[in-house]
This record gives sequence, structure tokens and C-alpha cells, in this order.
Amino acid sequence: MVFETLEWKGDIDGYLELIDQRVLPGRFELLKCTTKEQLFEIIKTLAVRGAPAIGVSAGFGICLAMQTLDSNEDLSGAIAHLNESAEYLAKSRPTAVNLFWALDKMKVCAEKFAADKPEASLADLQRTLLDLARRICWEDQFSCREIGINGEKLIKDGSGILTHCNAGALATAGQGTALSPLYEAHRKKRQFKVYIDETRPLLQGARLTAWELMQAGIDATLICDNMAGVLMKQGKVDAVITGADRIAANGDTANKIGTFSLSILAARHNIPFYVAAPVSTFDLSLKSGDDIPIEQRDAAEVAAFGGNRVAPEGMDVYNPAFDVTDAGDITAIITEKGVIEKPNTEKIAALLKG
Amino acid sequence: MVFETLEWKGDIDGYLELIDQRVLPGRFELLKCTTKEQLFEIIKTLAVRGAPAIGVSAGFGICLAMQTLDSNEDLSGAIAHLNESAEYLAKSRPTAVNLFWALDKMKVCAEKFAADKPEASLADLQRTLLDLARRICWEDQFSCREIGINGEKLIKDGSGILTHCNAGALATAGQGTALSPLYEAHRKKRQFKVYIDETRPLLQGARLTAWELMQAGIDATLICDNMAGVLMKQGKVDAVITGADRIAANGDTANKIGTFSLSILAARHNIPFYVAAPVSTFDLSLKSGDDIPIEQRDAAEVAAFGGNRVAPEGMDVYNPAFDVTDAGDITAIITEKGVIEKPNTEKIAALLKG
Repeated sequence: MVFETLEWKGDIDGYLELIDQRVLPGRFELLKCTTKEQLFEIIKTLAVRGAPAIGVSAGFGICLAMQTLDSNEDLSGAIAHLNESAEYLAKSRPTAVNLFWALDKMKVCAEKFAADKPEASLADLQRTLLDLARRICWEDQFSCREIGINGEKLIKDGSGILTHCNAGALATAGQGTALSPLYEAHRKKRQFKVYIDETRPLLQGARLTAWELMQAGIDATLICDNMAGVLMKQGKVDAVITGADRIAANGDTANKIGTFSLSILAARHNIPFYVAAPVSTFDLSLKSGDDIPIEQRDAAEVAAFGGNRVAPEGMDVYNPAFDVTDAGDITAIITEKGVIEKPNTEKIAALLKG
Repeated sequence: MVFETLEWKGDIDGYLELIDQRVLPGRFELLKCTTKEQLFEIIKTLAVRGAPAIGVSAGFGICLAMQTLDSNEDLSGAIAHLNESAEYLAKSRPTAVNLFWALDKMKVCAEKFAADKPEASLADLQRTLLDLARRICWEDQFSCREIGINGEKLIKDGSGILTHCNAGALATAGQGTALSPLYEAHRKKRQFKVYIDETRPLLQGARLTAWELMQAGIDATLICDNMAGVLMKQGKVDAVITGADRIAANGDTANKIGTFSLSILAARHNIPFYVAAPVSTFDLSLKSGDDIPIEQRDAAEVAAFGGNRVAPEGMDVYNPAFDVTDAGDITAIITEKGVIEKPNTEKIAALLKG
């Protein structure tokens, strides 16, 4: 990619640099994030978003949190601080499981370190945590690439591909999830056309996916969310591909609001519907999508955009940020470990174990 | 209604007054329309919109056009001018058939008048045309009311009703088409909840339907278009009701973009899908929806939101203003002459003949 969505700068006393996705595509601005409180706001206000990117950011967020400790702090005090910080960051957004997954990895790592090396210094622990946060970042980059390689054969020459929201490089530390197969197919000089749902209310499609695919020189056309059905009817869509924020044990998938409707429209038109996500997106503790918590966001996001109010003052608004697509309407889930066709509990468990 | 969407003021030298729907709900402004050129712009830029309101406006537009004639103009010259003016106004928007229907009525009326009364003055013709334009307006008000009376029984107590775009009083000279059954049910003190699709790109739901239902004190909640599916999944929607811009002989219905997707989502969830429209919306010259011309509108409508540019400069955009819902996915069409359940060519022909 020609840009880095997020990057750790420096050593254990370093900071996290991120593209401010709230102001794209009008402005390209980098944020210097130096505290966990700042990161909380950055995640909550969607300056960084996308399940994998949130997970990677959270890892580095723990590193930032550890910088505030006195250098004489002992390991048990440091771990207590880490646990509190993780609990705090976990409250920034409720749906993407990668956030909790990454925070948990950091916690487990610190506890193991303290058990193995009770005499180590705080700086040693900080270095170990930064190594892990970097590893989470690097693994995300690797997973993205593998998702692309596993998924690119599904992007046929001459086809039309519909995507929703942004599950691209801007949603990850690497080359994206849903968009990664497109990048791989593009590298192979395959010809295809992408249709981008603008993705109300926050227009991640119009603002982010449009910007990202333009940077890459991929042929793309922007539509309003409510135009997807008629494009399918016209035969212009050969596959739908989206990302995921959390996948339950049975394959039910939470993703950006509107994904569920696309899955129904695709099923009606016999169009394959693909979900692309790293295995860190699976939450085997939840049997089905009914158990996935769905974030409700502020009414103002629907009643206005970019500060322009469009609905009358006082209007009631419903604004769920995500919905859940039934596993039965998903043709396949593309992961870095392989493609799960017609996903169900058994196939998912087998892939994750393998 | 507490407002008049459009109203002719004065006699044959009068003018058309309309609510400027481009600036609602932020501002309530009345436009004074005195020429056919002004009306053309008013229709094209959606200051007045909604198939029935466009038809009624077009009738009055012919009256405005006739005001520019020299008072000594003979009837054949006047009719030639009327025909030219009708041809001009017909180019303002291509999909709503009520526009052509009203213009045709005005033309036929003038020709009959000239044949019956070859010695009549221009002023006599102008008065006859104004009478007809007022009659078209009055009939629209009557049709709206009848649609409401025929449709209100479909609005069950305690139910949730989803509507798209604005097919209310602002789309007609009366109390609307799709919203008319809601107004009737509300008068009967029935309790129900309306969900309003915001209706991108021009947000007629968020701006107009929200405003209109607020004026009437009807319980309504605004959603983004892509949230309709998940509301249905949650069991919150008991019926969908929309208007129509043109209905082919077989019942296929052109309406605001996004209507088609709603019909598929409703079918999947076994939710009745109703279309409400006056009989002037039927175009029996078209066998099916495939023949309905679909207006393509400016890319800037999608690339911007409420006047704010959101997509990157140079982005390709697809922006059809309407789509076509298959008759097979329509539970019933509610007209002023009765309700056509499971509409097809035979039932429609029978109702229109009766």
C-alpha cells in the first residue's frame, strides 16, 4: 500500500501514528497518539476503525499505558495497571472482538512474563509487550496478505464485485480483508469492476474505500446503499465481499449495518456472498449471532452528516452500527488459514484447530 | 393537512404557489411560480416532487404558459403554443407518468374545446384550461383521501410500518398516497409506529417524510436505508408501504431507488409490501417494468451529502433515481378505486375499466 494506516514509531518510549480517518478523503492527516486516553477517543470517534486495525491499535495502546508507570514499579503493580488499562480500552467499542482478543493477548503475555521472570525490570516487561504488539501488527499484515491469496481466485476476470463499508487497508495494519483479494487479483492484471456502497451513516465506503481503491488504480463506482439491489437485478454484480467485526461459532457474522440486507439481496439473486476476516475475528464463546452485542451510536450520525443537519430537530432515530448476517446466507468465509465454504460450527472449529 | 404543497392563486392571470421542498426541513419557504420555464426548473431540481404533485403542477404549468399569448391569438395558434409548452414541460423529468398524463389531459381538453367552440376567445380557452387544472388538483386531493380510506384497514393497531422516500402530502396536492392510510388510521386513534428510510441520495425521507409526520404528531423513527433489513429481522416491521412513479400494465412498479430492495427484504421476511398510488400512475401502454424509462441523475448527488462533498474528487458514480419492483413481490396496490391484491395484468385492467 502507498500509505500506513497505523505504525508504532520508536522504542518502548515511542508513540502510535495513525491516519485520521474522520477527515478522509478531504484531508490526509496523521495523528500522534501518546496516551491510552487519546487512543480511547481515537477508537470511539472512528479516527481508526475496522476490526483488525482496532485490535492492532489496542495492543499498542497497552504499550502507551505502560509508559506512565514509575520506572521503579514492580511487576505485580505493572500487571495490575495493565489489567486496568485493558479494561478501560475494552470499553471504547463493544462489537469488534479483535479489540478484546488483542487486549487479552497482552494480558496473558504479561502474566506469563512475570511468572517466568519474577526478577525482571519494568523496562524488560515493556519491551516484551512492545514486541508482542508489533507481532500482532505484523501478523495482521501477514493475515491480510494470506486472505488475499486465498480469496483472489474468487474474483473472476470481467466480473463485478460489490463491497460495503471499508474492509480495506484502512481497516487493518495490512492490505485489508474484503479488499485484499481485489488487490491480489489486480496484481495479477485481472480485470474487474468494484461497486462501493457508500455505507450510511458514516460513509466509510464513499470516503475510505473510494479513496483507497483510487490510490490503487482499481476501477470502482460509488453507489448509495439502496442501489445495491437493482445492480444485482441488472446482472452487474457477480460477487459480494465484506469484512466482519465478530463471527460466532456457527458462522453468523456481525458486520457494518447494511451487510445483512446485502446478504438477503445476494441470496435472492443467486450471487455468492463472501466474508473475509482473520481468525482473530471468530468468537467461539458465542454459539450464534444472537449473542453478539450490537453497538448503538448517536442519533446525530443519522440526522446529520459532516455537521449539516438534514432531519428535523427532535426527530427520533435508530442507529445500530452493525447487523448480523446468518451463516446460511454466507457462501464462504475467507481467512488466512483457508476458505470455509457454507460455514457451520463443525467446519469453523476444524479450521481454527488446524 | 396544516400546509398546502401547491396552490393556484387568483384567476387565469394568477400564479402557482409551491412549498420549496429543496430547503425543508431547515426552512419553510414558498415559491411564486409565474412561467413555464420557472416550473421546469422547479420540477427538475425537485422543489416540487412526487408523481401526483408533478402531474398537478404540470396542469397549472400549461395555464402559466397560456398567459404569454397575445390576447388576439386565435385558437389554433393557442393550441399550437399549448402543444409546444406541453412538449417542453414533458422533458423536465422522465419517469413519473402523471406528468405526461396531466399534460395529455390539458392537450385533449383544448382540442375538444376548439372543436366544440371554434368562435370562443382565448380567455374562454384559458378559463377552461384553468378549470381542468384545478379539477386535476381537486381529483388528486380526492384520490389521496380515497387511497387512505381504502388502505387504512391494513394499518393494524400496535403495528410497525416502514415507508421509503416521501409519498405523503408533500408528494401530492392532497394528503399523500403511501402516507394517506397512516393519516386515516391516525384519525381513528389507532396506535402504530412508522419507520422512515432516509432515502439517499436526496434524503426525502429524512427531510420531508420526517417533517410531515412530525407536523401530524405521528410516532416516527428515522433510519438509514441500509437498516430496513435488520428492523424486519427483529420483527419491528409489520408492513411496508410506498408510493409509485409509474406502474406498468402487469403491476411492475417504478418508484424511488431502494424500493426494489425493500420488496425483496419484505418477501424474505413474509412482510406485506403495499404500493399506494392513484390510477393516473398506471401506464397501460407498457407491458412490464422493463419498459419504464429510469432517470439517471447527477453524480454530485451521491458524491455529496447535504451539500458537503464526501467522496474523493473524480470518483465514478452510478445514480439511478428509480428502480422497478416486480409485481410478484407486491402484496397489493392501493388505489382510489380499490385495492388490487396480488396485482396482475387482468386485475389491473379490470379495476381501471370499472
